[in-house]
Amino acid sequence: MSPPTNRQVRLAARPRGLPSRDDFTIAETPIPEAGHGEVLVRITHVSLDPAMRSWMNEGTTYIRPVRLGEVMRASTIGRVLESDDPKLPTGTVVLGMLGVQEYAVAKTSSLVVADLSLAPEPTWLGGLGVPGLTAYFGLFDVGKPRPGETVLVSAAAGAVGSVVGQLAKLSGCRAVGVAGGPDKCRRLVTEYGFDAAIDYRHDDLDAALERHCRNGVDVYFDNVGGPVLDAALGRLAMRGRVVLCGAVSQYNQLDRVAGPSRYLSLLSKRGRMEGFVVLDYEHRFAEARAQLAGWLRAKHLSLREHVVEGIDGFPEALTRLFSGDKDGKLVLKVG
Amino acid sequence: MSPPTNRQVRLAARPRGLPSRDDFTIAETPIPEAGHGEVLVRITHVSLDPAMRSWMNEGTTYIRPVRLGEVMRASTIGRVLESDDPKLPTGTVVLGMLGVQEYAVAKTSSLVVADLSLAPEPTWLGGLGVPGLTAYFGLFDVGKPRPGETVLVSAAAGAVGSVVGQLAKLSGCRAVGVAGGPDKCRRLVTEYGFDAAIDYRHDDLDAALERHCRNGVDVYFDNVGGPVLDAALGRLAMRGRVVLCGAVSQYNQLDRVAGPSRYLSLLSKRGRMEGFVVLDYEHRFAEARAQLAGWLRAKHLSLREHVVEGIDGFPEALTRLFSGDKDGKLVLKVG
Repeated sequence: MSPPTNRQVRLAARPRGLPSRDDFTIAETPIPEAGHGEVLVRITHVSLDPAMRSWMNEGTTYIRPVRLGEVMRASTIGRVLESDDPKLPTGTVVLGMLGVQEYAVAKTSSLVVADLSLAPEPTWLGGLGVPGLTAYFGLFDVGKPRPGETVLVSAAAGAVGSVVGQLAKLSGCRAVGVAGGPDKCRRLVTEYGFDAAIDYRHDDLDAALERHCRNGVDVYFDNVGGPVLDAALGRLAMRGRVVLCGAVSQYNQLDRVAGPSRYLSLLSKRGRMEGFVVLDYEHRFAEARAQLAGWLRAKHLSLREHVVEGIDGFPEALTRLFSGDKDGKLVLKVG
Repeated sequence: MSPPTNRQVRLAARPRGLPSRDDFTIAETPIPEAGHGEVLVRITHVSLDPAMRSWMNEGTTYIRPVRLGEVMRASTIGRVLESDDPKLPTGTVVLGMLGVQEYAVAKTSSLVVADLSLAPEPTWLGGLGVPGLTAYFGLFDVGKPRPGETVLVSAAAGAVGSVVGQLAKLSGCRAVGVAGGPDKCRRLVTEYGFDAAIDYRHDDLDAALERHCRNGVDVYFDNVGGPVLDAALGRLAMRGRVVLCGAVSQYNQLDRVAGPSRYLSLLSKRGRMEGFVVLDYEHRFAEARAQLAGWLRAKHLSLREHVVEGIDGFPEALTRLFSGDKDGKLVLKVG
């Protein structure tokens, strides 16, 4: 029997448009050994996030691009296999940015312990992971919703959007979600407690926003860009805030992004459009995780993950982020 | 001899694109009579402002549109002709929104006294008028520049932009201006004290911004929209602020505005783009005018007006706002 190896997904080419299988290679390498202050982790689940697409491009953005030949960057959860750190004994379940692979060595200081008695692994990559934290800081710190206001969110059935809507409700706001297709729209209302859902594939966006956001949009949490961003700007309330979290409709055409032609609403409505990067809030992640965990325990948060199996299926799984062919936080189960 | 009449410029049609003479009529009406709490004003100068273009369009923006047949709305300065208010005796020079006409009746409470010993009439419509106030509140309250930061402003030789640059210098910032043509660019540096000038008609915007804003653009005060806005977004510093004051490059095509395709810089740079309307600061106009007047007296402010004569020339004068064929604050001298 050959010794076990570490299966890795590496970036082979910078994708043009939608990433495809040719942009990645699968490599098998020896399992690495932990050095001092490090542990060896067996990765069980990999998080698939729209931001990954921008990490594949050349040019600096808020984080350096993944280099060609490098293991694709990803949030992961796994179990400590080898450790001499008493705070992270063998068997501890940990979160870390360990990449799309089966094993990784990590500095103990870069890992966070996940309590599976609270929620299973995929949830720790979703509502209790970076997407949940993104919803938390983007909504509360950038959007600053006040009770009675209307919060609109796009990609509302997704990992970030579904949490934004529920946090908006917990803040005493009206929550309106935009998603693709009747199933997701139904779930927004029945499962996540949104007040209304808009199907961007079938509804007239301007008319739907007029109907569901009678007093205008006080906070628009934007995950998609494109026509939904423009529609939201067209319905902005006085002193409305647009939280720029992402632009999944534009990530595969970053050389010809469609700018929001209704941006002058920001002028007439004294509005504000502001971007943020969740990594800036790292010093407050523990606070936010404790809050989110509390709401989860109290059943104020409904979290859903869409789990796809097999590391070799990473390239195909990734495209579901852009087609919308998923329901909830997209997670890849490894090995 | 026939009795004197009141010559008025009225909006006759909603312009498509650039306003032309056909969009206005000249009317002659009897001089109105002041009622209780009112005074009669002989208007001497009318302010020409880019915002006027948006007031001619149907649809609500931050202020109701001018109605067809109505006297064109405008900031004005003039002399009180008839008054029974001891606070505004005959001969007092007053500022008010009295429209493009020779005479107007106004509520005394809507007028502000202008002290001609400080500056002549055109200056009261420029640096000490709405443009100066716009620069003051937009830069200080929205842009919030800090010493050592770089402030970029477009239409920098104009009524608002020239003041923005000078206030930026007074705040200890580096000031970079964008204007059209070598004469205006020279004046930015020699007369207004900008650190650098960029000629949008001749320079490569991206290259010029890289050269003149080495550490990025901390505050971009946008009067124009279009390619200059995109260039500024592409050079935004971390946590940069875009102050949306106007979009003179877009006002004649509001049905097909070019949105800023580089708006995602706001995300990677944690930036903010915010609109404002100077009328919201009316309760602080006196404070701002006192500050501006102080700087003018101390020769820290250089203010320049471009005066065009004759009320009948209003339509042609207006187009200079969009062609840039003017130097400083554009003012129409009446009668």
